Amino acid sequence: MIDGWSTVSSTVEYTGVRVLVRRDAVRRTDQSLGTYEYTESVDGVRVVALDDRGRIALVEENVYVCGQRLLMCPGGGCEPGEDPLAAARRELAEEAGIRAAQVELLTMMWRMPAGARTREHLYLARSLSVGEHHRDASEADMELRWVALEQAVAMCGDGRITEAGTLAAVLLTAQRTTAWSGRPPWVPTVARCRTRDRRP
Amino acid sequence: MIDGWSTVSSTVEYTGVRVLVRRDAVRRTDQSLGTYEYTESVDGVRVVALDDRGRIALVEENVYVCGQRLLMCPGGGCEPGEDPLAAARRELAEEAGIRAAQVELLTMMWRMPAGARTREHLYLARSLSVGEHHRDASEADMELRWVALEQAVAMCGDGRITEAGTLAAVLLTAQRTTAWSGRPPWVPTVARCRTRDRRP
Repeated sequence: MIDGWSTVSSTVEYTGVRVLVRRDAVRRTDQSLGTYEYTESVDGVRVVALDDRGRIALVEENVYVCGQRLLMCPGGGCEPGEDPLAAARRELAEEAGIRAAQVELLTMMWRMPAGARTREHLYLARSLSVGEHHRDASEADMELRWVALEQAVAMCGDGRITEAGTLAAVLLTAQRTTAWSGRPPWVPTVARCRTRDRRP
Repeated sequence: MIDGWSTVSSTVEYTGVRVLVRRDAVRRTDQSLGTYEYTESVDGVRVVALDDRGRIALVEENVYVCGQRLLMCPGGGCEPGEDPLAAARRELAEEAGIRAAQVELLTMMWRMPAGARTREHLYLARSLSVGEHHRDASEADMELRWVALEQAVAMCGDGRITEAGTLAAVLLTAQRTTAWSGRPPWVPTVARCRTRDRRP
């Protein structure tokens, strides 16, 4: 919870199959009142599977909500109570038939911070072995493609990759590897500060 | 709409202040039936404002839904009927007091493709002039910080920047500029294909 903020009331406005809508009344630090409407759903995962030849696995599938085929890293929602890392390994195996000896967290991100209490965990998987996938009926249109990491980076910039988790995960992977620039990953140099606005 | 898919029925399950929940029954290409529950809300924008010294504007604010302060590029939701580019310019002025002579689209992305029909438009703004911001009451805790682009890239990798639109926009900006590697942006080299799975 944010320092000094309090929840005055929280009401569940709608309960669906996989999503819940809440409306909260809040009191801010300055005592002003506000209302926030947001959804809650399970956390999600997205995994960059990078093979020994510098290629990553992308799955292309029909995404009804967007009305398009989208090209994405394997991933999906966590099962209730499932650890995100376990979900990442499960989705990688189910959607792409991939097992990885090494899986590391790239970052955690908020998909829609103003409207959805849903976190996305992004992983980088290496030391891969590829077997048979186990897709469910709704994933029948899914196709697996192997793309060089540098090409995937280009696809993030030209509209061929448009899914938020995949964009962030591919670009972060490029930053962590030689595909970025051959330099080691940037070392943080900015101390966290809480001063008021600083203008140029 | 996806080739061969049809919407059998679409029901509004909940209508909130800024979000609507739908449940659609669909028929897929193979005639199988499915159900999709998703939210609809206005499109959003997020803007990287890059100044002549290679720094970008980040706003830090309390985000109730996440229970955290988040560091983000200026941005927010489009007003009903508002063009995303106009929304980008408006948010930049309101939140950070910045006007830009040049604003270009970095990409459009889907924030939560499985569960939300909401697109995010990411922009890069240059040739900036900085004046007074005009934040609303809910933005009273907002602070503006100027951070070198390379440092912002590092912050995307170490957990200091965790908002999906900001992650993608900052990393794409780095790709487009010399902060990436000094090389020109990658030229797409992969032709789009629709073959079945190709394994390594």
